[in-house]
Amino acid sequence: MPTDTKTATNSIVDALNWRYATKKFDPSKKISASDWQVLEDALQLSPSSYGLQPYKFIVVTDQKVKDELVAACWNQAQVAQCSHFVIFARKNEVNAETVDQYIDLIAKTRDVPVDALKPVHDMVNGFVTGATPEKLAEWTARQTYIALGNLMTVAATLEIDNCPMEGIVVPEIDRILKLNEKGCTSVVACALGYRAADDKYATLTKVRFPKDELFINI
Amino acid sequence: MPTDTKTATNSIVDALNWRYATKKFDPSKKISASDWQVLEDALQLSPSSYGLQPYKFIVVTDQKVKDELVAACWNQAQVAQCSHFVIFARKNEVNAETVDQYIDLIAKTRDVPVDALKPVHDMVNGFVTGATPEKLAEWTARQTYIALGNLMTVAATLEIDNCPMEGIVVPEIDRILKLNEKGCTSVVACALGYRAADDKYATLTKVRFPKDELFINI
Repeated sequence: MPTDTKTATNSIVDALNWRYATKKFDPSKKISASDWQVLEDALQLSPSSYGLQPYKFIVVTDQKVKDELVAACWNQAQVAQCSHFVIFARKNEVNAETVDQYIDLIAKTRDVPVDALKPVHDMVNGFVTGATPEKLAEWTARQTYIALGNLMTVAATLEIDNCPMEGIVVPEIDRILKLNEKGCTSVVACALGYRAADDKYATLTKVRFPKDELFINI
Repeated sequence: MPTDTKTATNSIVDALNWRYATKKFDPSKKISASDWQVLEDALQLSPSSYGLQPYKFIVVTDQKVKDELVAACWNQAQVAQCSHFVIFARKNEVNAETVDQYIDLIAKTRDVPVDALKPVHDMVNGFVTGATPEKLAEWTARQTYIALGNLMTVAATLEIDNCPMEGIVVPEIDRILKLNEKGCTSVVACALGYRAADDKYATLTKVRFPKDELFINI
């Protein structure tokens, strides 16, 4: 943990101001293995509802696959240019079995008997088995957005550029990456890497509503 | 920006490991004005689709109102104990007028004529006016999850504890805070403050799926 709050304070806001939705990446610049490990850790550590982590992160670095994905991402060139292209996918099956697996994971991680986790099991299971498939799919999709928000912020602190992408053709992405066979469906994506020196969007003033329009203080 | 990537690297992962869904806050500890400003800045700087920011952040520090909200949050005591309770609300109206306001904001911020922004206008407007009300509401709700993910990460870097909450009774929250009159609907919430010394959840090992289950590398 940073011990000097003041330094952390300045650097995190600076990082968020530095960040922008990168429109043009420098394809020659790749994220180092050590930096990528930080981003992987961050994704793994993302909070999710009940801690259920009902998603998978598909990380594409293979250039041929990135090239193939461009058309499935509304022809956004960043997909091919970036260093790491991450697709956030929701698990198709979120059910009683998923909950059992999760409870087993808690038991194993914390070295407690499964029986002791019955209250947690019942709470999560009640939610999962009580929701309609549509609601569950949407709930699962929302969890990936927490991870997306977390990832973009952490990347910014490492001066790693990124561009989130909702503009993806889900069935096409799923077909190319064989996601259905892997039990998941793509939701949203994020290209990561380093801005091209001539990305004119890098120098534009950030557009945000003033705080008095964005916040209601009670 | 942090110039020493190595330091940033360690501290951000440490912060995410330090963070947990706080179950018990110390009600005597309040977030300082300077730290809160960082969190406000972070929320304001959150990325959103098209940059449209179709949300409002309701920040409750009034103890009476926090107390009243507890019952509307499945009786979770953190609502009353925490320093700042943030409700992420989606704007009810996202339409051609919203897009016009946003385009005006871009024009003003970047000092460019509105006419020059026609391509952006048409793209955003096409999406907004082409989506069903249900899809638009869900899309708007998802944007608040990016801000939630960003907020939790930034708070962790400042050693500010937090607990996200999907367990809210939306109509009750909206009634108490008069959100419909303010043109928005609650989606998700987050309690922020400082953990109580005796919150037993603080010391539990974090439960995460191993990377080979969470990631698919291509």
